[in-house]
Amino acid sequence: MTKEQQGLENLSIWNDAASMLAKAKKDGVETVWDRLHEQRNECAFCAQGLSCSKCVMGPCRINMKGDKRQHGVCGADADLTVARNFGRFVAAGAASHSDHGRDVLDTFAAVAEGKTKDFQIRDEAKLRRIASELGLASDGQPIDAIARALADKFYQDYSSRSEELSFLSRVPEKRRTRWAELGVTPRGIDREVVEMMHRTHMGVDCDATNICLHAVRTALADGWGGSMIATELSDILFGTPRPTASKVNLGVLRKDMVNVLVHGHSPVVSETILAAAKDQDILAEAAKAGASGINIAGLCCTGNEVLMRQGIPLAGNHLMTELALITGAVELMVVDYQCIMPSLVRIAACYHTRFVSTQDKAKFPGATHVPFTPENARDKAREVLRMAIEAYTKRKPERVEIPGQPVDIMTGFSNEAVLEALGGTPQPLIDAIKVGSVRGVVGIVGCNNPKLTHDYCHTNLAKELIKRDILVVVTGCATVAMGKAGLLTPAGAEQAGQGLASVCKALGIPPVLHVGSCVDNARILHLCAILANALGVDMSDLPVAASAPEWYSEKAAAIGLYAVSCGIYTHLGLPPHITGSKTVTNLALNGLEDVIGASFAVEPDPFKAAELIDKRISTKRTALGLTP
Amino acid sequence: MTKEQQGLENLSIWNDAASMLAKAKKDGVETVWDRLHEQRNECAFCAQGLSCSKCVMGPCRINMKGDKRQHGVCGADADLTVARNFGRFVAAGAASHSDHGRDVLDTFAAVAEGKTKDFQIRDEAKLRRIASELGLASDGQPIDAIARALADKFYQDYSSRSEELSFLSRVPEKRRTRWAELGVTPRGIDREVVEMMHRTHMGVDCDATNICLHAVRTALADGWGGSMIATELSDILFGTPRPTASKVNLGVLRKDMVNVLVHGHSPVVSETILAAAKDQDILAEAAKAGASGINIAGLCCTGNEVLMRQGIPLAGNHLMTELALITGAVELMVVDYQCIMPSLVRIAACYHTRFVSTQDKAKFPGATHVPFTPENARDKAREVLRMAIEAYTKRKPERVEIPGQPVDIMTGFSNEAVLEALGGTPQPLIDAIKVGSVRGVVGIVGCNNPKLTHDYCHTNLAKELIKRDILVVVTGCATVAMGKAGLLTPAGAEQAGQGLASVCKALGIPPVLHVGSCVDNARILHLCAILANALGVDMSDLPVAASAPEWYSEKAAAIGLYAVSCGIYTHLGLPPHITGSKTVTNLALNGLEDVIGASFAVEPDPFKAAELIDKRISTKRTALGLTP
Repeated sequence: MTKEQQGLENLSIWNDAASMLAKAKKDGVETVWDRLHEQRNECAFCAQGLSCSKCVMGPCRINMKGDKRQHGVCGADADLTVARNFGRFVAAGAASHSDHGRDVLDTFAAVAEGKTKDFQIRDEAKLRRIASELGLASDGQPIDAIARALADKFYQDYSSRSEELSFLSRVPEKRRTRWAELGVTPRGIDREVVEMMHRTHMGVDCDATNICLHAVRTALADGWGGSMIATELSDILFGTPRPTASKVNLGVLRKDMVNVLVHGHSPVVSETILAAAKDQDILAEAAKAGASGINIAGLCCTGNEVLMRQGIPLAGNHLMTELALITGAVELMVVDYQCIMPSLVRIAACYHTRFVSTQDKAKFPGATHVPFTPENARDKAREVLRMAIEAYTKRKPERVEIPGQPVDIMTGFSNEAVLEALGGTPQPLIDAIKVGSVRGVVGIVGCNNPKLTHDYCHTNLAKELIKRDILVVVTGCATVAMGKAGLLTPAGAEQAGQGLASVCKALGIPPVLHVGSCVDNARILHLCAILANALGVDMSDLPVAASAPEWYSEKAAAIGLYAVSCGIYTHLGLPPHITGSKTVTNLALNGLEDVIGASFAVEPDPFKAAELIDKRISTKRTALGLTP
Repeated sequence: MTKEQQGLENLSIWNDAASMLAKAKKDGVETVWDRLHEQRNECAFCAQGLSCSKCVMGPCRINMKGDKRQHGVCGADADLTVARNFGRFVAAGAASHSDHGRDVLDTFAAVAEGKTKDFQIRDEAKLRRIASELGLASDGQPIDAIARALADKFYQDYSSRSEELSFLSRVPEKRRTRWAELGVTPRGIDREVVEMMHRTHMGVDCDATNICLHAVRTALADGWGGSMIATELSDILFGTPRPTASKVNLGVLRKDMVNVLVHGHSPVVSETILAAAKDQDILAEAAKAGASGINIAGLCCTGNEVLMRQGIPLAGNHLMTELALITGAVELMVVDYQCIMPSLVRIAACYHTRFVSTQDKAKFPGATHVPFTPENARDKAREVLRMAIEAYTKRKPERVEIPGQPVDIMTGFSNEAVLEALGGTPQPLIDAIKVGSVRGVVGIVGCNNPKLTHDYCHTNLAKELIKRDILVVVTGCATVAMGKAGLLTPAGAEQAGQGLASVCKALGIPPVLHVGSCVDNARILHLCAILANALGVDMSDLPVAASAPEWYSEKAAAIGLYAVSCGIYTHLGLPPHITGSKTVTNLALNGLEDVIGASFAVEPDPFKAAELIDKRISTKRTALGLTP
C-alpha cells in the first residue's frame, strides 16, 4: 500500500492522520509509508525467515522447495534456520522488556538505598502487599528496609542462580506443572535470553522444536519476570493507576502552550518531566516566553505509562509519532527507548522541534543527548523543559496545523482498580462470565504496522467483540485506536451487546478498559491467573483470548508467545518471519495447542478474527459448562 | 571455490582431508564444500550487513548508494542497520562463551555444595590461588568453603548487580581507565548481552558508533568474564595443563579399537567420558566385542580441552569434523555444543556411527539424546561408551579408511606452565623480547572457513611469523593446523628465525605454543596483562598481535573484538558482515585505534598478513625503545 496506490485516506482511518499526511506532502517530509513504498517487493527469503547471516561461512538462503539450497553451508535446513531466527526475534523482545524492568529496578533500588531524592515510593501499601505476597517480612519493618529486600529479590530474578521467578507463585498449579513437564519453567530472566543467543549460534541447538520451546521459556521470563517487575515497581514508584479521565489524538497539542511530547517506554524520565513541569520557576519562564503554560502529551508506551498513572493526554500511537512532529506545533520530543523511529530526528529537523535523547543505551545521531540517571533526573528534566521553552520562541505559526478535537477517554484500570470497582473480589466478574453477560475477556494489544491500514483492525476487532458481549482490555498502541474510536468511555457501551452494556452501565465503566503500556500486559496475565485460581482451573480453561492485530515489533512476538504459553489463544494480524518452516508454522498454529493448551491464529481481517475469537470463547465456555 | 572448479586438492592443504574428500565422493556423502558451492552467489545485502528482519514492518534491504532504499521502513540507514546486525553477532558470540562458562560454574558449584561425586577439585592449589587473588579468605579455610565462596563471586559476575567483573583486577590500570572513560567497563556478563539485544531492537540505540562501543563492552564481558571463568574453573576441576606429548590428524583413529570422538566446546562431558573409559568393566566389554580398547580422540575445542589437560589426541578441526566420520572408523561421536555442523547427524547415518547429544540446550534431530547433568555424568558416560562398543560390532571393515600417520605434538602451555618453564617469573620472556630474540608474541586463533583453503592461512602465517622471531601461541581450530604442520614440537624451531630458535632450544619448547581452546584465549589476555603489568605499560604498548586467519563464527568475532579492545592489533582473514557501513568499517579498521589503541586488519593472504603484523610489532618495539 502506498500513497500513490490507494490515496492518503486509506493509509489510516483517522482524520488527524490524513491531515498530517497531506501536510507531510506539502512540507516535503518523508514518512514511514514512503519508506515502506520504497521497500516493497521485500526479500522472500528474509520474509519467510529463510536467510541466515549468523556466521561468515554464509550468508545463506534456504529454499523450501526443489533440490538446490536445501541447506545452509553448516547444514541447517529450513526448519532450523527459521527457528534460529525466530528464537533471536523473541529473545530481543524479551530482552527489551526485561532491560526496561531492570532500569525501573535500578531506580527503585536507588530510592531504597537513599541514593536519590528525585524519586519516592508513592504507593507504600502496594510495596508492603507485594513484599508480603513474595514471602518477605513486611509487618513492622521500615519502608526502606522492605524496599531493599524487594529489590534484592527482583535482582535475584535476573540472576543465574534463580531457579524460578518470584512471580511464578501467582501462576495456577496446573500450568506450572505443565511448564515443568515441558522444561520451560523460566529461571533467571537474563539467563534465558543469553541461553537463546547461545542456542542459536552455529552448531548448538539444531532442533527447531527445542529452540521453539526455549523461546517459550524466554517469553515467560519476560511476562512473569521483566515485564511484571517493570509494572509492579512502576506502580510502587509512581502510583498504582486508578480510573481517571483524559483525552486522545493530535488535538491534545496546544497552540498557546509549550508542547512537549514524551515518547518511548519507561516512565522514569517522563514522570520527572511531569514533576518538573509543575516547578513555578519553569512555568514563569514559559509565561515569559509568551506561552500560557507547558503542555505535556504522550506517545506510544511512555504515553500509556503517564496516561494510566497521571492522566496525561495521549497524542498518538506508533504511526502517529512522525505525524505529531509534522503539526509543526511540537517544541520538543524527549525520548527514552524502544519504538522510536530513527526518522524522527530528521523530521524534527524540518521544524523548530528539539529532539532530546536521555538514555546512554539509546542515542540518536543529530539529537541533543541529556543523560538521565536516578540521581540527576529532576535537574535534567528542568534542563529539557528550558530547551522546550526556548524552542517555543522559534515556533513558526505559519507552519503550525493542529488537526481536530481531542476525544474523551477514561483510563487507569489496573487490576487493583478493577478489583476495587468489583468490591474487592473477582467474584462479580466471574458471576457475570458465568451468566454470560460478559461472555469472555480479550486483550487487544500491540503496535501499528504500515502494512495494515492504521487502526482499522484495532477498532473493528474491538467493536465486533464488544457487540458479542466480550469485554476488551487494551494496552500499548491499540489504546490510542480505542480512545479515538470512543470506546474508552462509559458511553462506548452503547456499541456493546446487551449483556456487556448492562455490566458497563452498572459499574460506570467503558466496554474497553485501558490497562496500560506493553509491559503492563503483565497485568492481564495476572488477572487471568486470579480468575483461574478463583475458579480452580488452568488459565487455558478460561474464556479469554489475546490479539495483536497490527503488531510490528520483536517485543510483540515475545508478548504473543508468553500469552500462548499461558494457555491464552492469540490472534495476530500478520505472521512473524516463520512461514519458511512447516515445522515452526505448524507448531505455532496447531502444535502448541497440544503441548501448552493454546496456539496462534493469523488473520488480517478483523471481522474474521472476531469470528475466530468468538468461536474459541464459546468452546471454552462450553467446556466450563456455561452457555456458549 | 568448489570441487569442480578447483579440484579436491585445493580445498585443503592436507592429505588426510584430500583422501576423505575423495571417499566422500565415492560414498555419495555431501560435505560443507558441496553446500558452499550450492550457496554461491550469496546475497550482497546479507553479506554486507544491510538486511534487516528485526520487525514485521520489514524485512528491509538498504542500498549503500543511489537514491532509493537508503532507509529501512523504520528509518534506519546503512550504518545503523549494519551496527545492529554486528551488535547481535558479537552478543551471540559472547553469550556462547559465557553460557559455556556458566555450565562449568554450575558443575563447580555442584562439587562445592557436595551435590555430585562425579567431579572433583583436581587443582586445589589453583583454587586457593584464584580465591586469594580475588580477595577471598583462603588460608586455613576448608576447600569446599573456598569453592563455595568462589562460586558465589563468579555467579555475581553474571548478575545484574555486578558493577565490574572480578577478573578486571588483572587488567593494567591505564587500560581500565580508558575503558571507564569510554563507558565500556563490563558490568554483569549476562547484562551486557541482554542490553545489546535491547539496544538493537527497533527504536532503541540508533547511533551506530554507540552500538559498536556496547559491542566492545559485551566482548570484554566475554574475555574477562565468561571465557576467563570457563578457563580458570575448568583448570580447577580438571587440572591445570602442563606440557604433554600427544598426536594429531585423522591417523589418530584406530582400526583395532572402539573409536569415540568428543566434539563441541565444554570439557565437562568429555572429561567424564575419559574417566569412564578407564572403568575395567567397560574395557572388558570392549574386549568382549573384539576391540583392543577404547580410543578417544577430540575434535574442535572439546578436543583442545582434553588435549591440553589430558593429552588426548586431536583428530581434526572444524572442516575435518565431517571428514572424520567419512573414515567409516568412528563408532560414536558424542557432542556437547557449539560448532557442531547439523550435517554431522546425516553423515553419521551413512555409516555405522552413533551420534549422541548430551545437552538439553543442544539437541539434534536424528541423534540419540543422553542428557548429562553434574549429578549423573559418570553413569551417562558409561551408557554412551556401551553404545559405542555395540556400534563397533556393526562396523563395516570394507568401508573403513583411516588416512595417514598421526603427527607428534606438544601441548599444555597454560600460563602457569609457561611461567614455571621460565623459572616462576615472566622476566626471562621480557628479557628475550627486550634483546629481540623474541621480537613479539602473536596469538593465532579461531576456526576454519570453507571459503578459504583449509589451514593454508593458519600454517603459512605461523611459519612466516616464527621465521621473523615472533613467538606464536595458538588456540582452537588453528591448533590442529599447527600440529599437522609440525610446528607444535621443539623440532619445529628449525623453521624459526635464529633468535626464536635459540630460545626454543634453551627451553625445549616449540616455536608455536598450544595454549588451549577458544575460551582459553582468556589465557592470552591474562598473559598480556602480566607482561604489561611487569613492564608498567598498557597492553596496547606490547609488541603483540592476534590473528584469526580462517575464522567463521560469531564467537570468533567476539574474541577479535575483545582482543582489539584490550589494545591488541587483530588480523582477520575475511571481514564480518559490516562492509555495508562506512562508519562501522572505518571504526573497525581505523577509528578504534584512536579510542582503544588497536584496530582490525583484514587480509586473506597469509604472507601479506605476516607483513602487516611484523610492521605492527616493529612499531610497538620502537615505541618501547627497542630494536624494531
